[in-house]
Amino acid sequence: MKYSFSKRIQKTPKSFIREILKVTQRPEVISFAGGLPNPDLIDIQGISRAAQTVIEQDGKNALQYSTTEGYLPLREFIADRYRKRYDLCVKPEEILITNGSQQCLDLIGKIFINNGDAVAIERPGYLGAIQALSLYQPEFFSVPLENDGPDTEELKQILSEEFPKLFYAVPNSQNPSGITYSEEKRHEVADILNEAETLFVEDDAYGELHFSGKVMPPVKKFMPEYGIMTGSFSKIVSPGMRMGWICAPEEIIDKIATSKQAADLHSNYLSQRIIEEYLRTNDLDAHISKINAVYKSRCDLMLKLMDEMFPEEVSHTTPNGGMFIWLTLPDGLSSTKLFEKAMEKNVAVLPGHPFYFDGGGDNTARINYSNADEESIRKGIEILAGILKEQLK
Amino acid sequence: MKYSFSKRIQKTPKSFIREILKVTQRPEVISFAGGLPNPDLIDIQGISRAAQTVIEQDGKNALQYSTTEGYLPLREFIADRYRKRYDLCVKPEEILITNGSQQCLDLIGKIFINNGDAVAIERPGYLGAIQALSLYQPEFFSVPLENDGPDTEELKQILSEEFPKLFYAVPNSQNPSGITYSEEKRHEVADILNEAETLFVEDDAYGELHFSGKVMPPVKKFMPEYGIMTGSFSKIVSPGMRMGWICAPEEIIDKIATSKQAADLHSNYLSQRIIEEYLRTNDLDAHISKINAVYKSRCDLMLKLMDEMFPEEVSHTTPNGGMFIWLTLPDGLSSTKLFEKAMEKNVAVLPGHPFYFDGGGDNTARINYSNADEESIRKGIEILAGILKEQLK
Repeated sequence: MKYSFSKRIQKTPKSFIREILKVTQRPEVISFAGGLPNPDLIDIQGISRAAQTVIEQDGKNALQYSTTEGYLPLREFIADRYRKRYDLCVKPEEILITNGSQQCLDLIGKIFINNGDAVAIERPGYLGAIQALSLYQPEFFSVPLENDGPDTEELKQILSEEFPKLFYAVPNSQNPSGITYSEEKRHEVADILNEAETLFVEDDAYGELHFSGKVMPPVKKFMPEYGIMTGSFSKIVSPGMRMGWICAPEEIIDKIATSKQAADLHSNYLSQRIIEEYLRTNDLDAHISKINAVYKSRCDLMLKLMDEMFPEEVSHTTPNGGMFIWLTLPDGLSSTKLFEKAMEKNVAVLPGHPFYFDGGGDNTARINYSNADEESIRKGIEILAGILKEQLK
Repeated sequence: MKYSFSKRIQKTPKSFIREILKVTQRPEVISFAGGLPNPDLIDIQGISRAAQTVIEQDGKNALQYSTTEGYLPLREFIADRYRKRYDLCVKPEEILITNGSQQCLDLIGKIFINNGDAVAIERPGYLGAIQALSLYQPEFFSVPLENDGPDTEELKQILSEEFPKLFYAVPNSQNPSGITYSEEKRHEVADILNEAETLFVEDDAYGELHFSGKVMPPVKKFMPEYGIMTGSFSKIVSPGMRMGWICAPEEIIDKIATSKQAADLHSNYLSQRIIEEYLRTNDLDAHISKINAVYKSRCDLMLKLMDEMFPEEVSHTTPNGGMFIWLTLPDGLSSTKLFEKAMEKNVAVLPGHPFYFDGGGDNTARINYSNADEESIRKGIEILAGILKEQLK
């Protein structure tokens, strides 16, 4: 190798998903492999009006440098929304605007993780978090995910033996599994982490994409001192603007601001202003209801077809929100093989093994329903069912 | 401390400039302390039209997730501009879009610097680079800056004794000093670094803000294998959109892409599209000429007033571009005292010592001319002259 790269980047493989998506993005492919919001549900006219207003009425400021923490009225909107939706009280000063919630993970890694520190993560766990935190060279420990949340006995054991710096999790409609923590598990996780004085990084990218059952309180509500939440406008306004936020105690936000300033000074200010204008002048609840109605109907259709057509040895989760269904194949079947066979027939699924950093998971797969129309879902699930039946013969 | 932060962030102080700007931003203060482009020179109408076109004609794509490397036509525009302006031939594949050029420094640190690696930087050196790279815990070595570029004997000595991973520099209208490398020094620096097989990180944030003398070839032109350039639309289109780029050999871009994906997936795609639309449908050269005419006249005025009014013991650089003049006070005078005295009279300058990570520089100060009108310049320089004369009594 000509260049002497850092140890951290030499150990970081290319993203498996990114490589796979190159193959599955051909127009003839019915893809359940990605994780894209449905572009038909982006309010283009509303965003266009907001952009016009902001640039024409206050372009000089909106296009100039701004503060590292982010546009105050936008941070106020987020704090207000937490209060209304989750009965969670935080100050705008406890919120900092980032480039999507992905950047939160990089900044959290930067301010907390020393080389070799232990970090706990769900199993299966969100790939983007594994990738972002990996660059700070922690040792990962995995907490198995059950249908109602993490295995708390395992969590306790990891806390007492490995003293992790933090536990990263996605309690609402998890990526990749679609699992939502029960209220009981939320209390239990908070109690265990509070007791151990260990940080909980609660990725709430999918909290607003909630289409059945009760809205659960965030775990942070029960652990104000050790709870960090991350959020995103990607799923409810626009992913392309890369706008997210981190919510944490001010002592932590202060360090996040220092690392954010070194990383890129501040997030795109024009887009912060456009999103704030859009949120203030449009009915966000009505817009989200529209998204959720579509996602629910796609999810319901997919689940119904899976139940009708898949061999009964194949099990799936039943999400109450988010964008993903998680398949578990019977012993002996491989989702990598399923991927290969399905691609021959122009249907793409995402093999589950990359979500298990410590190996395993080859009998699992992630299926996305947000970005496929009904006809594709019917056709795609039928093809997958045929392959699965063939493989089980 | 309640939280157990990483060693890297515990060692990172709050930005001195950021703290100082809080004081100097009061409306009654004439501030030469900041580094803001002049907002009156942002083409608000042109950007507004571009935003409208992009959102209305292709909103579904412009507001969706996109590729980590960035929008190809924008990367093509940058490659084309390098060819036309600098006779520098690079492929669009050698360019990746970032959140301002500041993010390049974070990503470069991430992919190259191991804890304790040596890094060379100009003395005085750009504070944002010191801050961004510091988080990867290198050992810095400083190369004194002379009026025509770095002291090459010192550079050779550092290369042979410390084997730095890279040399970071700003050859065009440097921040903070305003110095531009001579053509001879550019060749010399390239030869020395090529010989040592050491990377040159060439921050070209101010290259387009060039208002007198010949346009110099970038150092990268003479070191295609070891040259990395960073660029920015902040000074020529809009800082608030946080759009910059890194240009490097593909093997390096490949690692930058992996680290960028972990950091925030990709840069704001809507703004990439708006900037590309703006650049394609407007006359960039005419726009830059307008900016440079204003900056040159402000700079000329400031230099003339300094020559007329400052004590002759105070020396200044004579920039041929960029946004800053660098003052050197005679021995015994302190720019921190100058700052304090001037603030009492509502004039702000930036003390130079933060640009010297290894101490010293208290007799230097950075003066910004891009963001002050003629009246403020006349009034502010007169007040500074009075204080300097008083201090020299």
